[in-house]
Amino acid sequence: MDEATKTLTQLGQQAQTASYDLGLLSTTKKNAVLRAMATALMAHQAEILAANAKDLENPQVADKFIDRLTLTADRLTEMATGLKQVAALPDPIGNVDRAWRNEAGLMIAKERVPLGVIGMIFEARPNVTVDASALCFKTGNAVILRGGKEALHSNQALVSVLRGALAAADVNQNAIQLIQDTSHTTAAKFMQLTDYIDVLIPRGSARLIQAVLAQATVPVIETGAGNCHVYVDQAAQLPMATAIVVNGKVQRPSVCNATEKLLIHRAVAANYLPTIITALRDQGVEVRGDAATQAIIPDVVPATEADWGTEYNDLIIAVKVVDSEAEAIQHINHYNTQHSEAIVTDNYQAGKLFQQRVNAACVYINASTRFTDGFEFGFGAEIGISTQKLHARGPMGLAELTSYKYVIDGNGQIRQ
Amino acid sequence: MDEATKTLTQLGQQAQTASYDLGLLSTTKKNAVLRAMATALMAHQAEILAANAKDLENPQVADKFIDRLTLTADRLTEMATGLKQVAALPDPIGNVDRAWRNEAGLMIAKERVPLGVIGMIFEARPNVTVDASALCFKTGNAVILRGGKEALHSNQALVSVLRGALAAADVNQNAIQLIQDTSHTTAAKFMQLTDYIDVLIPRGSARLIQAVLAQATVPVIETGAGNCHVYVDQAAQLPMATAIVVNGKVQRPSVCNATEKLLIHRAVAANYLPTIITALRDQGVEVRGDAATQAIIPDVVPATEADWGTEYNDLIIAVKVVDSEAEAIQHINHYNTQHSEAIVTDNYQAGKLFQQRVNAACVYINASTRFTDGFEFGFGAEIGISTQKLHARGPMGLAELTSYKYVIDGNGQIRQ
Repeated sequence: MDEATKTLTQLGQQAQTASYDLGLLSTTKKNAVLRAMATALMAHQAEILAANAKDLENPQVADKFIDRLTLTADRLTEMATGLKQVAALPDPIGNVDRAWRNEAGLMIAKERVPLGVIGMIFEARPNVTVDASALCFKTGNAVILRGGKEALHSNQALVSVLRGALAAADVNQNAIQLIQDTSHTTAAKFMQLTDYIDVLIPRGSARLIQAVLAQATVPVIETGAGNCHVYVDQAAQLPMATAIVVNGKVQRPSVCNATEKLLIHRAVAANYLPTIITALRDQGVEVRGDAATQAIIPDVVPATEADWGTEYNDLIIAVKVVDSEAEAIQHINHYNTQHSEAIVTDNYQAGKLFQQRVNAACVYINASTRFTDGFEFGFGAEIGISTQKLHARGPMGLAELTSYKYVIDGNGQIRQ
Repeated sequence: MDEATKTLTQLGQQAQTASYDLGLLSTTKKNAVLRAMATALMAHQAEILAANAKDLENPQVADKFIDRLTLTADRLTEMATGLKQVAALPDPIGNVDRAWRNEAGLMIAKERVPLGVIGMIFEARPNVTVDASALCFKTGNAVILRGGKEALHSNQALVSVLRGALAAADVNQNAIQLIQDTSHTTAAKFMQLTDYIDVLIPRGSARLIQAVLAQATVPVIETGAGNCHVYVDQAAQLPMATAIVVNGKVQRPSVCNATEKLLIHRAVAANYLPTIITALRDQGVEVRGDAATQAIIPDVVPATEADWGTEYNDLIIAVKVVDSEAEAIQHINHYNTQHSEAIVTDNYQAGKLFQQRVNAACVYINASTRFTDGFEFGFGAEIGISTQKLHARGPMGLAELTSYKYVIDGNGQIRQ
């Protein structure tokens, strides 16, 4: 066994042991620890910012990562507030989904339990370290964090503070562990630690997520790839459509629930395209269009086949004219990532058909795709947005970080 | 692209297209088709038995597979009854788990939808072909079946009859498809068809399941590995313990919920071991024991370290004496497959502690491990017993073959 495997195995064993302890902590105790973590973050502000400064000094860090990597007093306060918010949320562990007595007289209760050990793989955002640790701890899961190398010093400082709070509360510190070796080979081994890790949740770019899916043998929850469409039906209220499309595209273009594609029914295209394209361009959006769009607005950038499958995460949108709602649905089901899709229409049947036939985690009538979010959904938290169908789909809050066990009370029953 | 990949891709595309149609069928229609399948099975009895006879003629088929491979008029009648029973079950598709209005005024409904396309990989039991097809069809999922080569003719005949019933009802026949090429290389490619298959469910031996886990890139639901324990506490009613242990071991020793290990508290070991070992031996069970058991019953077969992790699926049991409930729990959590575990005790605290701390899908007080079963649980069906924590745990019925989507109704909401 090589050194990296030895270290990972040890982390895994420690996490598993910690997870058995965590599953038994009372909600009151867990909440007190989360609030203590918030206090500790503020108390150790200087050390954390100093560690972050070291990360920022690294000349290798690309300019576009600087913002997400940078910690400030304000951002630390936000993290601390986040910890206190997680403390205030209801605890799903121990909830009984349902209980019943079976034919043989057994009382069977389906009770929520932690998943066990969660592996988080992420990039250069140190806030994920605190967020993920809080959500995993609240749900009784041990977490092993593997952050990007650019944020190593920041993550070390943050994890050290969180583990200090665990130790001070007499909780197994290995509830939260950080992989110190940020090499790709170690990451690959981490993704195959099936004896100790119950689920991997990658958070970050599509490239990161694809790399995890390709290499992992531990079950993965696929998150965060978006390529969201808005379909403007012939029965749409056009001013409402404009508000929804512009909001979806420009309110925060870098996120996975941003609107990336606009489909317009041919019956309204000639009338509506000039309005919506002007509205988008007024906000600095580059508009690409299919042949039919080009025929109406000659100066759009021609869209290529590659555009339809691309998540821009930028102020770019591609527009396509469709002959029918059926064509819109077919196009969406072919090119989407099953994240979030919207129709704008006043036709009841068209709206309901769209919701029924579009294959996605969230399907909207007359609303912005930007609402796909744990906080907007009222979950009070979000560990990611799942784009797979197994286990969890759409925004994942605390409930989605649980499994269940059947707890069964008998009085001597045997099977006939 | 090689021939096998081409064929699989085509099967995958066809299944995906069928799955979109299936998701929209009414419950009434699906139930009528299931009953028509039952009628068709009986009508085509002669062809099916002839095909089965061809499989049985193969001199390569090992003796131990003959029974599970053999079809008879009675077994076909059982399959037909099974189809009618699935028709009579409630349909989970379209159920709304919960619905709520969020802060922005959106009505969000979490609605049950099919998983999409399910890949079933199994061995020489042709009844799985019909069972799995029925459960997948009822839940609006398309299924691609990959059965063992020993059962190919039987599976071809059965699938042809089921597809005939689909066609007669004007339903897309590709809802049920069989992989004709039963080579291992094609199976491996099938397990990596991530563009078209939403989940793989292997059913069969531990070897098969491990092979699927190792090769698949499609998400897998791990099923069926058992190594179930009964722990007889010092506060157990000993006659009840005997009934539970003997039932767990001998009622059907070949299945995954059979009892494979017996742990006995030291305080009752000297008194109880002669009774239970005699009772087991009376039923033809080979008893293996640790050193403490050997000290009390000198003629037990000495148990080795390998025994504790082995699923015998046979009339063999290994016995270990433990010093405490804590030791029993630790032993179980170390060696079990997270399937089903039982304690026999009249001590309330001991029972509840065991249920809380044992890491398994089903944890029993005073009942046989043999109850872990979709039918015994009242689900009316079972596609397998999951031993993982993601998505589904324990017996999987119709509900566990579903995912969900968020269906969201707005009136122009945009995100602030």
